[in-house]
Amino acid sequence: MPMTTVHRVFNFSAGPAVMPVPVLEQIQRDMLALPGAGMSILEISHRSKAFEAILAEAEADIRTLANVPASYRVLFLQGGASLQFSMVPMNLLGPGAVADYIDSGSWADKAIKEAKKVGAVNIAATTKGDRYARVPDQSELQLTPGAAYVHMTSNNTIEGTQFSRLPEVGAAPLVSDTSSEMFSRPIEVARHGLIYAGAQKNMGPAGLTVVIIREDLLERSTSRGPTLPTMLNYAVHAENRSLYNTPPCFSVYALGLVMKWIAAQGGLSAMATLNERKAAKLYAEIDRTGFYRGTAEASSRSRMNVTFRLASEALEKMFVSESEAAGFDGLQGHRAVGGIRASIYNAFPEAGIDALVAFMRSFEQSHG
Amino acid sequence: MPMTTVHRVFNFSAGPAVMPVPVLEQIQRDMLALPGAGMSILEISHRSKAFEAILAEAEADIRTLANVPASYRVLFLQGGASLQFSMVPMNLLGPGAVADYIDSGSWADKAIKEAKKVGAVNIAATTKGDRYARVPDQSELQLTPGAAYVHMTSNNTIEGTQFSRLPEVGAAPLVSDTSSEMFSRPIEVARHGLIYAGAQKNMGPAGLTVVIIREDLLERSTSRGPTLPTMLNYAVHAENRSLYNTPPCFSVYALGLVMKWIAAQGGLSAMATLNERKAAKLYAEIDRTGFYRGTAEASSRSRMNVTFRLASEALEKMFVSESEAAGFDGLQGHRAVGGIRASIYNAFPEAGIDALVAFMRSFEQSHG
Repeated sequence: MPMTTVHRVFNFSAGPAVMPVPVLEQIQRDMLALPGAGMSILEISHRSKAFEAILAEAEADIRTLANVPASYRVLFLQGGASLQFSMVPMNLLGPGAVADYIDSGSWADKAIKEAKKVGAVNIAATTKGDRYARVPDQSELQLTPGAAYVHMTSNNTIEGTQFSRLPEVGAAPLVSDTSSEMFSRPIEVARHGLIYAGAQKNMGPAGLTVVIIREDLLERSTSRGPTLPTMLNYAVHAENRSLYNTPPCFSVYALGLVMKWIAAQGGLSAMATLNERKAAKLYAEIDRTGFYRGTAEASSRSRMNVTFRLASEALEKMFVSESEAAGFDGLQGHRAVGGIRASIYNAFPEAGIDALVAFMRSFEQSHG
Repeated sequence: MPMTTVHRVFNFSAGPAVMPVPVLEQIQRDMLALPGAGMSILEISHRSKAFEAILAEAEADIRTLANVPASYRVLFLQGGASLQFSMVPMNLLGPGAVADYIDSGSWADKAIKEAKKVGAVNIAATTKGDRYARVPDQSELQLTPGAAYVHMTSNNTIEGTQFSRLPEVGAAPLVSDTSSEMFSRPIEVARHGLIYAGAQKNMGPAGLTVVIIREDLLERSTSRGPTLPTMLNYAVHAENRSLYNTPPCFSVYALGLVMKWIAAQGGLSAMATLNERKAAKLYAEIDRTGFYRGTAEASSRSRMNVTFRLASEALEKMFVSESEAAGFDGLQGHRAVGGIRASIYNAFPEAGIDALVAFMRSFEQSHG
């Protein structure tokens, strides 16, 4: 494969997002037939020994990378974080119980709306009044004694904010939507009841959702089995080791390759160091003069989604348009908030950060 | 790419299943970067013009191939047929209403179990007493006047049976699980209220579900919006043109390529002719002597999943083991029923049928 002839842009998309090139090359190499299998990963039975090995290895690599305790199950599901917004309360929020939700951004708000369809919800804290420019502080949390769980969104993709540490929530299981940061830094799995994430940011292609759930919580799913749709029941997926029905085999395979790539980079600590350095370079450029203005409060700034504004929407439009001409893609902010957003997940190359910083400098010189 | 060096077996898997080699080759060629996009299909934003074009083209090709009337919507969802088992009643079966289910096999039975969690179900006919060796006849149907819908399973993957014509069900919308036959023959879309299928048999990789729904039925979903989980609401997916959240982009792309491949073969009528010829060759060999015994009654035989037995389980085990040594994969029957099953979907090459017939002849000579 003559890789050098393939033209690739710097892809700042918020997800689906940039993948490691060596992973794409391996997928390409084996697309007609997995080594030894005589068929493509797209064709292989999910009940075959070859696929079961792929699934088991992906799980084992996740467990090693994230140091997942034996008392947690790793599930490969479909439907994205949006389906988890419903599955979490349908499995974990019983009649008469209350779930606490920390409202730190647009996706947290969506999770809350879905939970309210299922049961009683308490908003433990919200920064909506601050246009989600920061995540709530520990001192702001109004937690319900005996809550079924506490839900948080660890990184707010649209607003570019991130929790730098986990909130203290007492005895209630902490449920975290980590879609836009999972495996970008070490995870304190043991402090959670459940962690979920769509794969399409740091972990692989779209169409796969990773759920890590503490085993004792599965009892709640089991008790709801008679009325809960089988496909939405965590306990069923756990019992069947994510093979209750046909899983998204290709996405599981690709995620497995990404896990091996992360391990080869030095694991989650090394990824965190790299991601902090990448983000710091961008924030330094944003803060250098007043030409760019970061939208998140400094202490809440995300290492994954760097959001900023220019003096006017017209100037922002020009920024996006000139950036595209310069070989950058996906810098337009989410349609709900506007502005500029650079999503710089694990696989986003540092050279692309340097190139964007140089472009920002040059744009400022031309338009400042 | 030196294709000739790639060793490929004859893959009789029931799904995920064999894909057209030209489709695999195109996926391989463009894996590092879609032409003109500068990024892989695995990395491209689902909100990008490039992906929206891929999605729109896949839908347009489905509409052309299956002659889908304008009053029907085509949706790309996740979760497989198993999630449809719940979504269908959650969207279409209101309080006080009854849904009729035709019980023609193991998957129909699963659909019934999920529907019963949601509302009132009438078993309009069942062939369970015949071990599902045939599909129910029109004369056996006991339909409920004013039923919310009538659910059928057009091809029974495990038992190797298939409806050769659609049942007459009166005014109630006919809902059909066509997972293991969609696009293997022409579809009378206009006689259905809803058609669904997991992609991983005749249409593409696992992780994608195609739903074709008559527009007026979306009103039922809308009326249930306040309590129905958003991700399970057909109307939401229709309004958002399957982009409510991140779709399984790669699987949509691959399905689109398969649609173009089907069109290049001559469309659904040509596929039906080819599939009938392939199946007829296998059934002729099964019927030639008494050595093999087809499990489905002749009038209910499936063109997709050809199931048969040998004189003993020991002989069947030998058959599977010798077939694997001869370069055939996936011939073991479903674990629930045993025996032999040859799944011969659209992309399964006729040369593989001829090779299997020759193997069966030779096996009979050695062991008969």
